[in-house]
Amino acid sequence: MVYDTRALAQHIGGVTLVDQHVHGCWLTPGDRQRFENALNEANSEGIDYPGFDSQLGFAVRAHCAPVLGLPEHVDPQAYWERRSRFEEEELARLFLAAAGVSDWLVDTGIGSSCIAGVADMARLSGGRAREVVRLEEVAEQAVQAPGDYAGAFEEILHGRAAGAVGTKSILAYRGGFDGDLSEPSGAEVAEAASRWRERGGTRLRDRVLLRFGLHQALRLGKPLQFHVGFGDRDCDLQKVNPLLLVDFLRDTSDVPIVLLHCYPYEREAGYLAQAFNNVYLDGGLSVNHLGARAPAFIARLLEMAPFSKILYSSDGFGPAELHFLGAALWRRGIDRVLREFVDRGDWSEADAIRVVDLIARENAARIYRV
Amino acid sequence: MVYDTRALAQHIGGVTLVDQHVHGCWLTPGDRQRFENALNEANSEGIDYPGFDSQLGFAVRAHCAPVLGLPEHVDPQAYWERRSRFEEEELARLFLAAAGVSDWLVDTGIGSSCIAGVADMARLSGGRAREVVRLEEVAEQAVQAPGDYAGAFEEILHGRAAGAVGTKSILAYRGGFDGDLSEPSGAEVAEAASRWRERGGTRLRDRVLLRFGLHQALRLGKPLQFHVGFGDRDCDLQKVNPLLLVDFLRDTSDVPIVLLHCYPYEREAGYLAQAFNNVYLDGGLSVNHLGARAPAFIARLLEMAPFSKILYSSDGFGPAELHFLGAALWRRGIDRVLREFVDRGDWSEADAIRVVDLIARENAARIYRV
Amino acid sequence: MVYDTRALAQHIGGVTLVDQHVHGCWLTPGDRQRFENALNEANSEGIDYPGFDSQLGFAVRAHCAPVLGLPEHVDPQAYWERRSRFEEEELARLFLAAAGVSDWLVDTGIGSSCIAGVADMARLSGGRAREVVRLEEVAEQAVQAPGDYAGAFEEILHGRAAGAVGTKSILAYRGGFDGDLSEPSGAEVAEAASRWRERGGTRLRDRVLLRFGLHQALRLGKPLQFHVGFGDRDCDLQKVNPLLLVDFLRDTSDVPIVLLHCYPYEREAGYLAQAFNNVYLDGGLSVNHLGARAPAFIARLLEMAPFSKILYSSDGFGPAELHFLGAALWRRGIDRVLREFVDRGDWSEADAIRVVDLIARENAARIYRV
Repeated sequence: MVYDTRALAQHIGGVTLVDQHVHGCWLTPGDRQRFENALNEANSEGIDYPGFDSQLGFAVRAHCAPVLGLPEHVDPQAYWERRSRFEEEELARLFLAAAGVSDWLVDTGIGSSCIAGVADMARLSGGRAREVVRLEEVAEQAVQAPGDYAGAFEEILHGRAAGAVGTKSILAYRGGFDGDLSEPSGAEVAEAASRWRERGGTRLRDRVLLRFGLHQALRLGKPLQFHVGFGDRDCDLQKVNPLLLVDFLRDTSDVPIVLLHCYPYEREAGYLAQAFNNVYLDGGLSVNHLGARAPAFIARLLEMAPFSKILYSSDGFGPAELHFLGAALWRRGIDRVLREFVDRGDWSEADAIRVVDLIARENAARIYRV
Repeated sequence: MVYDTRALAQHIGGVTLVDQHVHGCWLTPGDRQRFENALNEANSEGIDYPGFDSQLGFAVRAHCAPVLGLPEHVDPQAYWERRSRFEEEELARLFLAAAGVSDWLVDTGIGSSCIAGVADMARLSGGRAREVVRLEEVAEQAVQAPGDYAGAFEEILHGRAAGAVGTKSILAYRGGFDGDLSEPSGAEVAEAASRWRERGGTRLRDRVLLRFGLHQALRLGKPLQFHVGFGDRDCDLQKVNPLLLVDFLRDTSDVPIVLLHCYPYEREAGYLAQAFNNVYLDGGLSVNHLGARAPAFIARLLEMAPFSKILYSSDGFGPAELHFLGAALWRRGIDRVLREFVDRGDWSEADAIRVVDLIARENAARIYRV
Repeated sequence: MVYDTRALAQHIGGVTLVDQHVHGCWLTPGDRQRFENALNEANSEGIDYPGFDSQLGFAVRAHCAPVLGLPEHVDPQAYWERRSRFEEEELARLFLAAAGVSDWLVDTGIGSSCIAGVADMARLSGGRAREVVRLEEVAEQAVQAPGDYAGAFEEILHGRAAGAVGTKSILAYRGGFDGDLSEPSGAEVAEAASRWRERGGTRLRDRVLLRFGLHQALRLGKPLQFHVGFGDRDCDLQKVNPLLLVDFLRDTSDVPIVLLHCYPYEREAGYLAQAFNNVYLDGGLSVNHLGARAPAFIARLLEMAPFSKILYSSDGFGPAELHFLGAALWRRGIDRVLREFVDRGDWSEADAIRVVDLIARENAARIYRV
């Protein structure tokens, strides 16, 4: 029996998203090498092969080209030429609007004057934007402040978090999840901070201070995001399996913990979302890089995790194409996955529509209070 | 070329199953919270979100509702109300019969007066039931007996195993598979038993005694089941990767070792089933929790494992829906997977039918001698 | 919108392959047990169940039977009888020609007089064949030479590699990837070599000498292949996760490193191929053993890896069926995967055809210079 799934497709096409983890898009012009490098996440050294020859590159040509008035699958050279006719701010206006996002939750930890800030994202998209505070940046500010590190950290964190919707940790890039993540004592923190200060106080990698930051963030009561899995090669993929967080998660009972990206550990993340009332997950970044393979990934996100625990994000950063593409690929993918569930009689269409709303915006709206 | 697969579908619909790993269903009434918690495996603390909002919850509404005379996809409230009109024993009679199972191999390790025992399962289903003895329960009985622990363990084990078809270990919940699993010496066992007795002799976690139990079980020559992978959060998922059993498996040559559940390590388990003549696997529990996503999982069970090594089970426990749903989802899933193999010309329909029989009952009948 | 994909199917059917990792086929007759054991990779002890009852066995009956003039899905007995009418060299001529391979890159590390060598492979196939030198074999030759081990290793390696296209390491079978893989000092090498000589100098497992061999191979500037993942049970699957190579990869910047087989770590391997300009991957061996499930695996190879980094191989060894089947299953699988990408509008058909050429031969031709 085949149900009519037009209502589902229409709903997915129209639903407004909360992009619960995103960075700023570019504000300043760059060359083709910058653009092609931005199509590769893992290689932080600069690629030496055609950057468009990947699922993400093909997805840009398939789905972003029409936004710029080009035919689908236009060749890389033509895409680049057309893109070059626009200012980055113009591209941002086009692509951010086309994403159908009402709220951007912006991790400002990799900001610079070339990258849109929270206010820029609101301005360029015509939507709302709120900040997610990166904990390691707070630490790097606190260590520069005179006097007591712990006090400075708390003060800066509270100041910044007051207007923010949550915090984020890139512990994944600072040694990974392996080992003790319990709260250190005040004396340990003071000693570690003093050592770090002596070494210059840049790029926090000290485990004591990383742990201190996490537990301070938990006290805020706002969602705490973790980079999990797929990322650039600075992060040792084997050490960012979210199962390594299990002892830490046992210590956190109320504060929402959001596992980001997750590939190739999305099954492990889904298990944690079932095992812990306060664990959530998204598939941002991964969806973009998987391109034509994104539907299979989106289907895996719908395995063990309760549907109230799954969130949408793009993790867009740099080219505004990525902020749009995350939404476009998610809509295409969830449509294909849920249509199959409905067509086979496993789900009703009404249920499918309700789950779309949960993932697209309601779960995020609830935990971030946006 | 598309083959006619009606014979395959008909065969799958009618084949009688051996449910090679299952627990008792409920015998006593309970409230809605008990029911919704039973739809979540991993969270042993009690959920704080709508329990029906998961693949398992949707599968109950899709496939169990008609057994109670309700339309497919009926809403949770209506499902609960209808279910509440029945005694648990009535539900058991309905759902166990609808499962199409001839033999239930019942792990009695989590029994209580509220849970059906082996004889209850036979009575309520109209089928046969046999016991699988849980090793950790034998240990917990042996430690309460006066005198020599090893002797008591052996005596209890032999007494209980005489009428049983196999044994089961929940080493996964008692520290996982990591580390030495060789047989300890008599002196080590005596010393460990005496330490455990002094601490009260409950909930065995001592590695020496756990290892002792495994090697005693091997001597019985009957299949030994291991909980592997997916389970509640007491079990640290990273420590229950079956690849950690490889040194233990190298020590066991004849006794069938059955890896249960396996998600998300089903590929690793399939590899072990190819690598060791005596290793088998099933996908019980996981199939129920995956719901609409179960076909993809069932397909992965059909990768590296020889077809003579794959077994059916539901791992049902508590609501009798789960004993039925395991069978219903397995039939739906294997039909879809094998139909595709046949339609694409990779398998003949006769082969598909033969493999269905192997997994549904013949492999289990052979190794358990039922 | 459904595109006409006949051009793609036709192209995939006709494209000539470079089989970038393969062993010799049998030259001498053997019994049915030898044949059935060759259908199981992981169990090096000899199987005790019907060897045809696996995905690989079913694939032989489906796709190899017609090459011998038999109907698809012919039963095992009839297949064996027909096969027995041919000499192994006749089988080789039939199956190697049917594979559509122009260049065979032959790992000679498991050669014997019963196995085709490089020249045999060219002669029997009517194609070209080139050697891949196995590093552990070079070590086992060097330790038998008089005098300085390091000097002997270098001399043998350079001598053999002069006519070869690359080298291969089976570190996976000699302790796995875990631990230090940096270059040892000359003194360490001399000491380790002398210890190994005293122990007889067979089956290299010494980590110092294994590391030495890898770094000598890198100096050649030719591609270095690693056995990764799936293999026989001598290799501990948990220690051959390619993520364990990440520190080693950080030390290698120009020399192509090729990750072979990869199952079940193909996602991890694809990530490394994105993260490191010089990392490549293939799915040889796995494709054969997955049979009807190979398309899903081939699709996973097309996730994170840039398309210029993916290579074709069969990893055939022993029965010439395997050299053919690798190609047949790859053609079937890539057709199914790319047809779906094209049908759904994610890729253009021209792009799909170009990616087929990259994987089938162009990437290999570029890095091996064949």
